[in-house]
Amino acid sequence: MDVNHDAALVVLSGGQDSTTCLAWAMQRYKRIECITFDYGQRHRIELEAAQKIAELADVPWTCLPIDSFSKLGGNALTGDEQVESGVRAENNLPNTFVPGRNLIFLTFAAAFAYQREITELVTGVCQTDYSGYPDCRESTMTALQNSLRAGMEAPFTIHTPLMHMTKGESIKLAQEVGAMELMAWSHTCYNGSVPPCGKCPACELRAKGFAEVGIKDPLLERLS
Amino acid sequence: MDVNHDAALVVLSGGQDSTTCLAWAMQRYKRIECITFDYGQRHRIELEAAQKIAELADVPWTCLPIDSFSKLGGNALTGDEQVESGVRAENNLPNTFVPGRNLIFLTFAAAFAYQREITELVTGVCQTDYSGYPDCRESTMTALQNSLRAGMEAPFTIHTPLMHMTKGESIKLAQEVGAMELMAWSHTCYNGSVPPCGKCPACELRAKGFAEVGIKDPLLERLS
Repeated sequence: MDVNHDAALVVLSGGQDSTTCLAWAMQRYKRIECITFDYGQRHRIELEAAQKIAELADVPWTCLPIDSFSKLGGNALTGDEQVESGVRAENNLPNTFVPGRNLIFLTFAAAFAYQREITELVTGVCQTDYSGYPDCRESTMTALQNSLRAGMEAPFTIHTPLMHMTKGESIKLAQEVGAMELMAWSHTCYNGSVPPCGKCPACELRAKGFAEVGIKDPLLERLS
Repeated sequence: MDVNHDAALVVLSGGQDSTTCLAWAMQRYKRIECITFDYGQRHRIELEAAQKIAELADVPWTCLPIDSFSKLGGNALTGDEQVESGVRAENNLPNTFVPGRNLIFLTFAAAFAYQREITELVTGVCQTDYSGYPDCRESTMTALQNSLRAGMEAPFTIHTPLMHMTKGESIKLAQEVGAMELMAWSHTCYNGSVPPCGKCPACELRAKGFAEVGIKDPLLERLS
């Protein structure tokens, strides 16, 4: 493949972190594309948020269906199980855990990028704020990058600008890269509520980040 | 997860190599499961072959749908493009190539195995006979194994009993592990023909293997 380090593919979930990554990438790359995965998440609003954000950013957006997760075993984000703040007793992981989910997402992203001669992949995974997801860690991203390079013979780089940031630091980065306008359309709430429920772990983490920086969440501003 | 090295998950495509791997695994592990991927392959007969073989082997079989490939860009095994014996000019790879296909298959297999407390994954990939697929090489399998271990925090091992075998050697192994009865139901032909067309690259490679060993293909015996 012709390698062009001026182009990047952003994995856009529609949440605040991937939205920040999109704005970050827009400052660094000449050509950007976004990919969102429709894996049967309970809340279609996440997909709508991603589409709206890509539209506002004026970048090509692809929604890739992955219908395999529901067959892999139940979990809170695709099934009817209630999301709890705690963890599953058996493995100490949050009950929103799909084993290897980010491996699957990023492998599909790489296969998609390959076809478009893009080698730079950008994802909002972060090992600081997350509660034990092994597929969000830097060591996993390094191993995965090696696997993608070997398996597709292409010089992929996985960029994780938020990897070691606290939620507050990632909000500061969002400000710096001018992500606030896009952020007003991002969706975070695990319960799929608009306005956000404010009570689920995702809402709490988001609120904590904005509180740390001392600014208002543009999503709440927009909806008020 | 509770690790039990007595159990294995075999990636069963319905072809001769994965059928050999199933018989190989049956000699080594107490508990076997098989997984087949329905990724929109043109020939449904591959899925039927896999199901029939798992049934004859009396092992649980799961068919996991992956509907994402057709959206990733056209290729000969899911589209209408004719399979050619040659390679695509632009990247010197056969036109049956889906970038990273084995990475995706094995990552789904690992996620599935995880839910069943299986860490031993068995696949028929082979770097000897294949024409340049980077996702069939041992170095890729090692990198992928590291990625799966890191991303799911589970001690996965990817077993590739055929990795360095010629087609003839893999037929000999099939004999040794008693795979011939299952092999009579395996499907290899790229053109989806029963009886096999005998002319496509896959049929030619299969015939070459049996010729090397000097035995008859049990599939042709069954159909004659």
